[in-house]
Amino acid sequence: MKDSSELVRLIRTIPDHPKPGIQFRDITTLISDAEGLSASIEFLASRYAADSDAAPDVIVGIEARGFIFGAALAVRLGVGFVPLRKQGKLPGRTVGRDFDLEYGKDRIELHVDAIRAGMRVLVVDDLIATGGTAEAGVELIRSQGGIVRDCAFVVSLPELGGCARLEALGCRVFALCEFEGE
Amino acid sequence: MKDSSELVRLIRTIPDHPKPGIQFRDITTLISDAEGLSASIEFLASRYAADSDAAPDVIVGIEARGFIFGAALAVRLGVGFVPLRKQGKLPGRTVGRDFDLEYGKDRIELHVDAIRAGMRVLVVDDLIATGGTAEAGVELIRSQGGIVRDCAFVVSLPELGGCARLEALGCRVFALCEFEGE
Repeated sequence: MKDSSELVRLIRTIPDHPKPGIQFRDITTLISDAEGLSASIEFLASRYAADSDAAPDVIVGIEARGFIFGAALAVRLGVGFVPLRKQGKLPGRTVGRDFDLEYGKDRIELHVDAIRAGMRVLVVDDLIATGGTAEAGVELIRSQGGIVRDCAFVVSLPELGGCARLEALGCRVFALCEFEGE
Repeated sequence: MKDSSELVRLIRTIPDHPKPGIQFRDITTLISDAEGLSASIEFLASRYAADSDAAPDVIVGIEARGFIFGAALAVRLGVGFVPLRKQGKLPGRTVGRDFDLEYGKDRIELHVDAIRAGMRVLVVDDLIATGGTAEAGVELIRSQGGIVRDCAFVVSLPELGGCARLEALGCRVFALCEFEGE
């Protein structure tokens, strides 16, 4: 695979999921394909290799699909991996941040000792849509002294505004492929 | 790191979590350590390499911590990755299986098209305790025609009986390190 835009053909679209009008971009068909999975990690790794100005000290992956890409990328880059989890899932002492959903609120948490001041953190998830979770994650990591300059995704839905929202926080956003619409 | 039992020192024990009497073995301190994470994957990979009789066609990782080790191992071995998820989390058409918890029931699901008949499947999770989820996962994968001979874990708690339960299903169980007690 020469270009990450070729990954698009391995991503399945599930119409009207989870509700009418939403085209759900399903990465499970990408990762069940051996070449698709390994190419995804290689395309990400080439941008964040140790000699790049974006090289991280640690990767934070967003629950749950961000664990899939984030942990594999961490191993590939030779850095550690920290999970950013939904409320009540981490066993140790945590810090958390609430964020707004379309209807209601949600909360994400980090272990208090997971991020040390001055660490360069790369945030990874499978997909960036409205960016609410990623934005809360960046703010939470920064509240712990972590330096977040980069966020990486396999899929971007630029019309939903998440990339712009992260860029407004001073983050560089990298996505392997894009889809139009919601 | 020469021996996988050395991983034990990177695993944090959280006493009385999630309830009194349980010593929770927390792998987040192992994976936030770059060497700990990469050694874990290398120790697993050395057992399941392409030239071994245990080499899989695909890895099934159990939500959510099994995604961390399973996906990284899949990339390392050059095979695909399939998530085994809690009820309602997969966007496509699913098959599921109920299993008993200490109090009540739970259900895990696979996409119907994720496992093809005759595929050799390696099941991966972070920890094997009573083995209820892994047992249901093995049975579900087999119901789809997958061949499960091996299950791999980073941590085993042998006194809780999960390994014996999987062995009774005809699975070989591999764990990188063990802890006594619950």
